[in-house]
Amino acid sequence: MTLFMLISCTNAQEIKPIKLNAPDLNRGEKVMKALANRKSTREFSEKMLSQQDLSDLLWAANGINRPKEGKRTAPSSRNKQDIKVYVCMAEGSYLYNALTSTLDPVSNGDVRPVKAPVCLILVSDTDQIWGALDAGIVSQNISLFCSGVGLATVVRATMNKEELKKALKLTGTQTLLLNHPVGYFK
Amino acid sequence: MTLFMLISCTNAQEIKPIKLNAPDLNRGEKVMKALANRKSTREFSEKMLSQQDLSDLLWAANGINRPKEGKRTAPSSRNKQDIKVYVCMAEGSYLYNALTSTLDPVSNGDVRPVKAPVCLILVSDTDQIWGALDAGIVSQNISLFCSGVGLATVVRATMNKEELKKALKLTGTQTLLLNHPVGYFK
Repeated sequence: MTLFMLISCTNAQEIKPIKLNAPDLNRGEKVMKALANRKSTREFSEKMLSQQDLSDLLWAANGINRPKEGKRTAPSSRNKQDIKVYVCMAEGSYLYNALTSTLDPVSNGDVRPVKAPVCLILVSDTDQIWGALDAGIVSQNISLFCSGVGLATVVRATMNKEELKKALKLTGTQTLLLNHPVGYFK
Repeated sequence: MTLFMLISCTNAQEIKPIKLNAPDLNRGEKVMKALANRKSTREFSEKMLSQQDLSDLLWAANGINRPKEGKRTAPSSRNKQDIKVYVCMAEGSYLYNALTSTLDPVSNGDVRPVKAPVCLILVSDTDQIWGALDAGIVSQNISLFCSGVGLATVVRATMNKEELKKALKLTGTQTLLLNHPVGYFK
């Protein structure tokens, strides 16, 4: 292998930031219909989410819905905005940055807990009970967004925590709480 | 006071079961708009919720959305359906019975943590972390229902737990996790 080939290979694997679209606030079923359609789905199409679906999914999960105040779609204990949403896809893992509406690269490689095109990982960095309450709130934003726009998801606690801790470069105080595979229905 | 008067007074205070309406699945903003409008409100009109608003609020919180399977608007850890929703109003406290769509009387008297016409109290009876995750999920059903239909609410953890434990007749293993005052905007 030449040096050129080596550089090419390395570059090919490097994931880049993903700029997300502005949320489309005029989409989805009515909120009562979204609640009626809420269910757990455990099989997913392999088709990647569209750019708008990916963007709206993350905004719904824990995006900024009142830009002047920096406040979120999900309330949080003592407004600590403690929950971080990581995004695992086939090519690598990203951290959702609600301020810049980007997915910031964290690491290359496939560590998805489930073979859905996108797996959201909810991580807290606070007291366990508060963190769990806050993660449940973000989780239901994801579930109701999905049921409201016709995407499949399920909330899960099972995951390879050791592998994910390394891949997501978590500190010792951060806790992996929930994961949400998301995709189109099969 | 005669015996007759005494009996009358006692009867006047006795709260009765409240039969709830079927959920109106065609109401509310689109799910993305409900997420956009989600915010915490801490002041409430004194006006009592309409029968339909009260009914839809409880169904949204943790009602049965798939009657054949008995499954809920809120997923729960290992499908234990662990979260109980108590309803405190000026005249007394009730337990939401999703199977019969009723509010079953628990005790007379006003133990609302906040002076909103309705305060929902989320109680778990399982391991603390699982219970908190599940309570967060039910909480966000309440928040998004409210933002979707134009009701005011806030999720709170502060409450007089000793008083509520007695009034709601909780067992030693049940934990008071969250409360949601709900009302019309002032």
